[in-house]
Amino acid sequence: MYTDAASMKLIGQAFPLKSFHRIDTNAHRNFSAGIKRLLTNGAGLVISFKTNSPRIAAKWCVSSSKPHNNMTPIVDKGLDLYIKRNGKWEFAGVGRPNAVCNEFVMVKDMEKGEKECLLYLPTYDEVKSLSIGIDSGCKIASGNDPFTKKKVVIYGSSVTQGASASRPGMAYPARLSRDMGINFVNLGLSGSGKMEKEVADMVASIQADAFILDCFANPSPEQIAKRTAYIVKAIRAKHPNAPIIMIQSVFRETGNFDLTVRKFVERQNANTLTEYQKLLKEGVKHLYLIPGDNLLGKDHEGTTDGTHPNDIGFDRMLQVIKPAISPLLN
Amino acid sequence: MYTDAASMKLIGQAFPLKSFHRIDTNAHRNFSAGIKRLLTNGAGLVISFKTNSPRIAAKWCVSSSKPHNNMTPIVDKGLDLYIKRNGKWEFAGVGRPNAVCNEFVMVKDMEKGEKECLLYLPTYDEVKSLSIGIDSGCKIASGNDPFTKKKVVIYGSSVTQGASASRPGMAYPARLSRDMGINFVNLGLSGSGKMEKEVADMVASIQADAFILDCFANPSPEQIAKRTAYIVKAIRAKHPNAPIIMIQSVFRETGNFDLTVRKFVERQNANTLTEYQKLLKEGVKHLYLIPGDNLLGKDHEGTTDGTHPNDIGFDRMLQVIKPAISPLLN
Repeated sequence: MYTDAASMKLIGQAFPLKSFHRIDTNAHRNFSAGIKRLLTNGAGLVISFKTNSPRIAAKWCVSSSKPHNNMTPIVDKGLDLYIKRNGKWEFAGVGRPNAVCNEFVMVKDMEKGEKECLLYLPTYDEVKSLSIGIDSGCKIASGNDPFTKKKVVIYGSSVTQGASASRPGMAYPARLSRDMGINFVNLGLSGSGKMEKEVADMVASIQADAFILDCFANPSPEQIAKRTAYIVKAIRAKHPNAPIIMIQSVFRETGNFDLTVRKFVERQNANTLTEYQKLLKEGVKHLYLIPGDNLLGKDHEGTTDGTHPNDIGFDRMLQVIKPAISPLLN
Repeated sequence: MYTDAASMKLIGQAFPLKSFHRIDTNAHRNFSAGIKRLLTNGAGLVISFKTNSPRIAAKWCVSSSKPHNNMTPIVDKGLDLYIKRNGKWEFAGVGRPNAVCNEFVMVKDMEKGEKECLLYLPTYDEVKSLSIGIDSGCKIASGNDPFTKKKVVIYGSSVTQGASASRPGMAYPARLSRDMGINFVNLGLSGSGKMEKEVADMVASIQADAFILDCFANPSPEQIAKRTAYIVKAIRAKHPNAPIIMIQSVFRETGNFDLTVRKFVERQNANTLTEYQKLLKEGVKHLYLIPGDNLLGKDHEGTTDGTHPNDIGFDRMLQVIKPAISPLLN
């Protein structure tokens, strides 16, 4: 028995929307085509439901885009199911994609009783349709939003969007939400988190308690120098007291031996620091910087492809980011 | 300028072979077709070379098999390059696959000087051809085998073979080799590490200093009860003093909520323990067991798909396995 997930609580959107998109791109016609497409990807979107079915399946359709060579199809186009146990969200199963339209039993043979469930959508593809399957005779209903303590926007790059976590629930904003009970809104824009004015204005217009700018891997050093002040001031103008937390780019492990790449990231991070210091001098309050130099550890094993963290890399990022942001969000 | 990698030192084979296969399947006509195919996969195979080129590229062809939905194409069909620095092997770049035949610049713009390089082959596909590209005017030559302290065979499942590490060098036997300077021969047979008599005989025939049996996730509990004594005794008959280290199956995180899966793995691991204890009682010496219950940690986040470790899961496995085997191999 399948139920359309559109009738269930959808978590993770910056503004409430009917579709499984992150942002209503019709309302932002000045965004580039690439950014609009990325905003249709399901990164950070989660369906909340409850059911007493011992078996939970899903039918879903994504686009026909070619899978990325640095990600599992599961994180790219698949689903990730968590169930609450003893007050904690625990992994229960995945939806493995094999085609544009897929059907997969994510978990079965569970013990009796109603369960609260969170279903993470694909981080790098658009969900065109999604329905949740349960055993006949069982019940399913929309769930609550468990991440209501605060709302924090993370605007960033492919790393924010979730490349290259192993599955959607392992993207670092998703892990932060489960850990902290906070709604971290994933506005990671793979390769395109470049602080364009129109995107900065959209980010600033979101009603949120804090803003994390993890967007310093995508713009050139020159773009960082040119654009950082604008997005910070745009946010500050609309949110006088919200913490704004800048995160320098992760070290690019392709730059472990490639001196050109290394130099480029050093210049990105130097300019990020300079802009941060200038803004502080200008009197911008509640502005913070998390240094990038230790985000992936020191053994050079924290990426899938030299650029995007693997799950070890994300784990190390969280060990730096979580203690840095926790006092600012309490 | 491309050089055929067949002219370079090839590390990781149980017996020296001309092809990029793990075992000469023509010499084992009684193996199943599935096992023969898996033995053509490049898991654990490494090309050792040295070059003074600031740029290293690769051209390689694999099969036309469909990529697995629980792995990155990089670990499945791609390449992973390490370079020695200050006596340690450090990540340098990957070869990203996009088709059956691929060409990719793995690293460029390196500082001058000769470098020792290790190139890991795809863990889940056959390499039909491979050549290494350097800048014209530079030199390339076959390298040494850095893993000569000992030779240890790991016979096992998909987990051994490398599912679902992010890239070939992150499969746990590969990580052990770099960490310990020991040649861990990867005989992981995805889904097919079932201790069949003919495979057990082949494993026992390998000249090695120790044997790790990480093969208790694939056979049924009944097969474990029936076959474990045979493979242990076959190895012991040929290698009177070599440590034989059994590793219980990792906890299947699909069994976190699925009671049938959980029960099945519990029975696998109970039977593995029983067989171990029977063999000890019979007087088999130098036989060890690593318990499976803590291999992936306790937060249920250590897999990509509920079955196969992600890089966090492999990291946790190594935290258990390395201290357990180190004293036995010294």
